[in-house]
Amino acid sequence: MTLLYFLDLLGTFAFAVSGALAGARKELDIYGISFLAVVTAVGGGTVRDTMLGRVPPFLFKDLNYLFLSLLAAVIVFLFHSHVNKKYNLLVWMDALGLGVFNVIGINIALHSGVGYIGSMIFGVMTGTLGGMMRDVLIGSTPFVLTSEVYASACIAGGSLFCALDYAGFAQTPNTALSAVLVFFVRMYTLKRGLHLPRVK
Amino acid sequence: MTLLYFLDLLGTFAFAVSGALAGARKELDIYGISFLAVVTAVGGGTVRDTMLGRVPPFLFKDLNYLFLSLLAAVIVFLFHSHVNKKYNLLVWMDALGLGVFNVIGINIALHSGVGYIGSMIFGVMTGTLGGMMRDVLIGSTPFVLTSEVYASACIAGGSLFCALDYAGFAQTPNTALSAVLVFFVRMYTLKRGLHLPRVK
Amino acid sequence: MTLLYFLDLLGTFAFAVSGALAGARKELDIYGISFLAVVTAVGGGTVRDTMLGRVPPFLFKDLNYLFLSLLAAVIVFLFHSHVNKKYNLLVWMDALGLGVFNVIGINIALHSGVGYIGSMIFGVMTGTLGGMMRDVLIGSTPFVLTSEVYASACIAGGSLFCALDYAGFAQTPNTALSAVLVFFVRMYTLKRGLHLPRVK
Repeated sequence: MTLLYFLDLLGTFAFAVSGALAGARKELDIYGISFLAVVTAVGGGTVRDTMLGRVPPFLFKDLNYLFLSLLAAVIVFLFHSHVNKKYNLLVWMDALGLGVFNVIGINIALHSGVGYIGSMIFGVMTGTLGGMMRDVLIGSTPFVLTSEVYASACIAGGSLFCALDYAGFAQTPNTALSAVLVFFVRMYTLKRGLHLPRVK
Repeated sequence: MTLLYFLDLLGTFAFAVSGALAGARKELDIYGISFLAVVTAVGGGTVRDTMLGRVPPFLFKDLNYLFLSLLAAVIVFLFHSHVNKKYNLLVWMDALGLGVFNVIGINIALHSGVGYIGSMIFGVMTGTLGGMMRDVLIGSTPFVLTSEVYASACIAGGSLFCALDYAGFAQTPNTALSAVLVFFVRMYTLKRGLHLPRVK
Repeated sequence: MTLLYFLDLLGTFAFAVSGALAGARKELDIYGISFLAVVTAVGGGTVRDTMLGRVPPFLFKDLNYLFLSLLAAVIVFLFHSHVNKKYNLLVWMDALGLGVFNVIGINIALHSGVGYIGSMIFGVMTGTLGGMMRDVLIGSTPFVLTSEVYASACIAGGSLFCALDYAGFAQTPNTALSAVLVFFVRMYTLKRGLHLPRVK
């Protein structure tokens, strides 16, 4: 198992936990919690694959993503107050997942013949669309649209990846650098309380 | 016309009626009611086909689904208070449709090379995604996530289908058995007021 | 640059402005406003292309749509109160865009082997789905379902196009006539305050 795959699964688990916690807060039943866990974790990659004609989507080719998401749902269902207290750990894992999902999405889109700018969109999609589905399903305005540096951390990491790729850097260190930058931008702006400008 | 096709159309009509009634309750206009009828009836199968690369989706290959959904919309528009009173009949038809949609989705996914577990997901998708779209469009938390045994009836029917298919049973009786089980689980749990566990 | 392409870009800009204004009203940040601008402008065509197997969708093949949508977002972000005052101009551009998007969607679907009725659905989808996504994302009931003659203007224009196409008319004048009819129906019913019937 490569490090990237391990981090991808870690991010999947973190995203699924955030979906399951949202479902628990909304007092959904165990099916609803599981559904939100799966959708949050794999929703972005599933839309990406469908839009690129990579069908059936990745979810149906490697069941680990599904099983891990369901595991997260069961854990949240049984121990949700304990999980809630691990807030700091969850934020770290979520930021890691964001960086990894983003750069995986970019790599897949580039290999599908989409250029740099389009691939950055697929990166943002992979990293943020699952969370948007989660928020719409529980009736909230999507978090990613309203506050904090989240999608824009993906754009920063995507710009770095594309610039280095264009300059001829090897894919492996480039992938690592991009994921680390997303993680750093996300965590730094979160700790500092920085956010994007809004309309006055 | 096979029995399965007839039951599929019956389910389509029942799903469309539930969409149209939701639109009428929300005081949408005749276009809004028609749109909700169509989306509720064919939304799940359309996403399934798109995710499997079966394009254009079934809706565009056999217009009976569209015409039947629009017929349901017109009937609800003209006689919605009468339709509302047929609650028991609608619940029966909806449960039948759920069982039929589920097993059709499973069969299609299996023939598209998706394995048993993935195909069960496509079954649930076919049976429940249209109703979720209906609920999100009228601003409600999707019914299927919050209460009652609905998606889980699909999972029960899907498990039976896959187990018997794996054991070598013929497709036709297997399809019938699975649809009947979903119908039975749905109606029994509804009458008894049974529901899945929620977070305390 | 053909006239149709110019009008398509004009419509894209108008749709993006309506998305960005909705985001500004909801006090989203600059990313949220940009996201809503892009989704409103290209959401319908993206779903159309994905459902027809035309992948990656048009958005990724001609970046002008993206850049124009982002330009609209920046303009709204900086000068939203000025933009708001241009209400009449925006309504005109939006109605033009609706007619152009509709007839482009119909042409693409017809060339993909979908028949007349299915192609009219793809027309309505191209013209209205982006706006529906905008409304769902900001937590509103989709405007197109509740009031005014909007999707039904597309259906009128689509019917004319399909009737003339069936009668053997050339595509270019036919396309123009259909777009003009949608524009006219939309503007006339808006000025007159006409709307579709609702359930009493």
